[in-house]
Amino acid sequence: MAKTAINPTREQNYPHWYQEVIKAADMAESSSVRGCMVIKPWGYAIWENIKQALDSAFKRTGHKNAYFPLFIPKSYLEKEAEHVEGFAKECAVITHSRLEQKEGEAGLVPGGKLTQELVVRPTSETIIGESFSKWVKSYKDLPLLINQWANVVRWELRPRLFLRTAEFLWQEGHTVHSTSQEAQEESLMILDLYAEFCRDFLAMPVIKGKKSESEKFPGAVDTYCIEAMMQDKKALQAGTSHFLGQNFAKSSEIKFQNQDGEMEFAWTTSWGVSTRLIGGLIMAHSDDNGLVLPPRIAPAQVVILPIYKSETEREKILEYTTQLQKDLEKICYHNKPLEVILDDSNATSSARSWEWIKKGVPIRVEVGLRDLEQDSLFVGRRDLEPRDKKSLPRASFLQEACSILENIQFNIYSKAKSFLRANTKIVDKKDEFFDLFKSKGKQIFALSHWCGCAECEQAIKQELKATVRCLPFDSQEEEGVCIYCGKPSKKRVVFAKSY
Amino acid sequence: MAKTAINPTREQNYPHWYQEVIKAADMAESSSVRGCMVIKPWGYAIWENIKQALDSAFKRTGHKNAYFPLFIPKSYLEKEAEHVEGFAKECAVITHSRLEQKEGEAGLVPGGKLTQELVVRPTSETIIGESFSKWVKSYKDLPLLINQWANVVRWELRPRLFLRTAEFLWQEGHTVHSTSQEAQEESLMILDLYAEFCRDFLAMPVIKGKKSESEKFPGAVDTYCIEAMMQDKKALQAGTSHFLGQNFAKSSEIKFQNQDGEMEFAWTTSWGVSTRLIGGLIMAHSDDNGLVLPPRIAPAQVVILPIYKSETEREKILEYTTQLQKDLEKICYHNKPLEVILDDSNATSSARSWEWIKKGVPIRVEVGLRDLEQDSLFVGRRDLEPRDKKSLPRASFLQEACSILENIQFNIYSKAKSFLRANTKIVDKKDEFFDLFKSKGKQIFALSHWCGCAECEQAIKQELKATVRCLPFDSQEEEGVCIYCGKPSKKRVVFAKSY
Repeated sequence: MAKTAINPTREQNYPHWYQEVIKAADMAESSSVRGCMVIKPWGYAIWENIKQALDSAFKRTGHKNAYFPLFIPKSYLEKEAEHVEGFAKECAVITHSRLEQKEGEAGLVPGGKLTQELVVRPTSETIIGESFSKWVKSYKDLPLLINQWANVVRWELRPRLFLRTAEFLWQEGHTVHSTSQEAQEESLMILDLYAEFCRDFLAMPVIKGKKSESEKFPGAVDTYCIEAMMQDKKALQAGTSHFLGQNFAKSSEIKFQNQDGEMEFAWTTSWGVSTRLIGGLIMAHSDDNGLVLPPRIAPAQVVILPIYKSETEREKILEYTTQLQKDLEKICYHNKPLEVILDDSNATSSARSWEWIKKGVPIRVEVGLRDLEQDSLFVGRRDLEPRDKKSLPRASFLQEACSILENIQFNIYSKAKSFLRANTKIVDKKDEFFDLFKSKGKQIFALSHWCGCAECEQAIKQELKATVRCLPFDSQEEEGVCIYCGKPSKKRVVFAKSY
Repeated sequence: MAKTAINPTREQNYPHWYQEVIKAADMAESSSVRGCMVIKPWGYAIWENIKQALDSAFKRTGHKNAYFPLFIPKSYLEKEAEHVEGFAKECAVITHSRLEQKEGEAGLVPGGKLTQELVVRPTSETIIGESFSKWVKSYKDLPLLINQWANVVRWELRPRLFLRTAEFLWQEGHTVHSTSQEAQEESLMILDLYAEFCRDFLAMPVIKGKKSESEKFPGAVDTYCIEAMMQDKKALQAGTSHFLGQNFAKSSEIKFQNQDGEMEFAWTTSWGVSTRLIGGLIMAHSDDNGLVLPPRIAPAQVVILPIYKSETEREKILEYTTQLQKDLEKICYHNKPLEVILDDSNATSSARSWEWIKKGVPIRVEVGLRDLEQDSLFVGRRDLEPRDKKSLPRASFLQEACSILENIQFNIYSKAKSFLRANTKIVDKKDEFFDLFKSKGKQIFALSHWCGCAECEQAIKQELKATVRCLPFDSQEEEGVCIYCGKPSKKRVVFAKSY
């Protein structure tokens, strides 16, 4: 059996493999604060690239960034009944404004009891709604298109790095419109933007659709989502966009004077993606040798590994590779200079090479004395086997670097796309459906009919741990019967196990 | 008396003027959450520019970004005695993990009491120290140079937008070194970096120096600071950099194996600037017509105001100005395309012009029919009087735009620099010193001798509300006597009232 850099392998133990990939790439770690993670530089650099790409897409489509308070008064949360119901159970509650010494106590104890408790934002509809109610007065103020990059907290019982953590980083868009249609269009436009970002940057194909009633955002009229397939064939909800109707406009009193001079409640949306995307990125592409990064989102596209046997060799080769790094950094890749690491650490060349394989850097360039003499480079690609390297003249490599990177990006996407296609199947027989979700590791994305009633959905969830991931946009109307109860159904939905 | 856009003027009521400038420029507002502010798009865009400039300076000097938990267990804070003493009185304390319905209560009440209270980070030395103690094992792991962009919370009794808010945004650098000297050098290098950023981007001259014992960061060995002068001649502490010695390394157990194989405690630093810089920016440059923005930090450098009297004129002029906007956006200013706003809103041309004066945009370009016919533009500059506009051929303006902006940047800086010089004076007589700080509005930066004892410092603070802002780096040793007690002193310090 071939040796792998990550143990266990995906097949041996997928959840454990996931943790090991993160550890081997030095991306993040659990902190001693329950449920909270520390995002280490390599992981955070990926988040910075995600932010940059999304932020410019938001700005291109007319959104502006702002920042709202971390704390939400308890009474605000209570304004929208479904909303508070959805979030109350997982809120960090602030009750005091200081720590103080108390007679007879060894350490400090909370002091300065607040008259009203505050919660750390689990999401900001209610606190942003408070501002919007002041900002919006007339139809001329609309649409109001705001985004916030922030941290949020939702207490988690079973935290997992990037996928489910008590505190996570995200962006939350909040918009206000004068008509229902415009708000609907906004929420769908953003869903497209998310899907395109996943495709074009994360190389991650997604299925766009609508959530069932039970899976909707608390307080939304409609929740739209993108669902991605991980390599264990489970689904990851990678982003959501909510059409909130007038629910939050009513609870926050967001009203505007329309063109006829009458006061109306506005229509709002909200939408977000989070550091969870990094979890998706890892599980969609990585292999048994560690992280695989699509070049467009990688903190570095190229790593140069000088290889030498003596101090004289070292000097020569370092001069050559330093110049190579400079030349590469002059190349523009997707509107930014190529990011190039020159790794001259003390470890053996093999250890250094494996280090960067595990960190997912798209291109590795080894330069030894013979390469230097021939003015050529020994080039490895993360989307190919570690040993599958080839020699390239320096000049050709400089010329082709961008197209090699684009080819890697494309390959990673194609592989994920084929995997999604191969594991998305029409399932019409109940026993087949049960077999797929009851047998260990056989789960897929099942396109099956569902009557639409919450009881069947709930029963399937309980019996099989599979849920309606979404009512996909691209599904056609057709006659069928519910996979669970056999009653008539007009549309297939996506059933899957999920993160 | 000339009419001003901001009322009251600086002279009439400086603190009220400050609030009105922020309001007129639509930068921020108080939120209903006590002490917390909402940063509106125009204010946040300035913060984004500050972040971008500093972030690239940090990266250029080898620092990497990471992210650590928002919550700090109470016991961590208690590890460093001075540190907890300094922050305990202003901590938001989390005691519960959910809100729940309770029989007999109308609303929700806190539930899920935590076994150990958490505080929302007021600063992150202790929680980051916990990670660093795991990351640092050998001298080979050093220096460790980390930065975090984050929100922090320090309960404030008298909040003021940007200057003092319970929650604020900042960056906090945290570094670990193998020697005291290297850590000292790091903290001083960062202080230089802050001072250069203030000078080159915010056009704000600062005085670099060291804090007195009583003004030091809780737990630091030395705190270095940059102090800027506001137009009311009060000081604003604009940034601090702390040499922490081995204090936090000892409390967090950050140890490394040195080259001789022995275990040693490491040497650490921390340093930060915050959204407070925006408050400084406002108070350093703005005038009685509102915000004045240095071009290099402005969200937009140019605003174009089409002026027309009929629909036919409108079409012609919009076509012309849209093209002008495109041409300007092709110009590169400090490695970014010029940001250009085309304001075609319904308001009168005068109202629109004043709008952008109040928002501080460096260049206003008006285009009416006559300008268009002559292919020329009517150009106003925010550093000159509102009416002081001049006609420029379109081609010349395009050619000169960047140098005009640089000239504005330079003028704003020069004005602030002259103001700082004019209001920094050697004061050797006690009665003059008392007069300056006791008389309303007469305060300056007084360069006076101080014996160094805490009692004199405290007495001056209580009697005059003036404090030792810093022991400036550029002050020479000379014989003198303490301005308060008359005992011998070897150095002058900066006394001032402060924000």
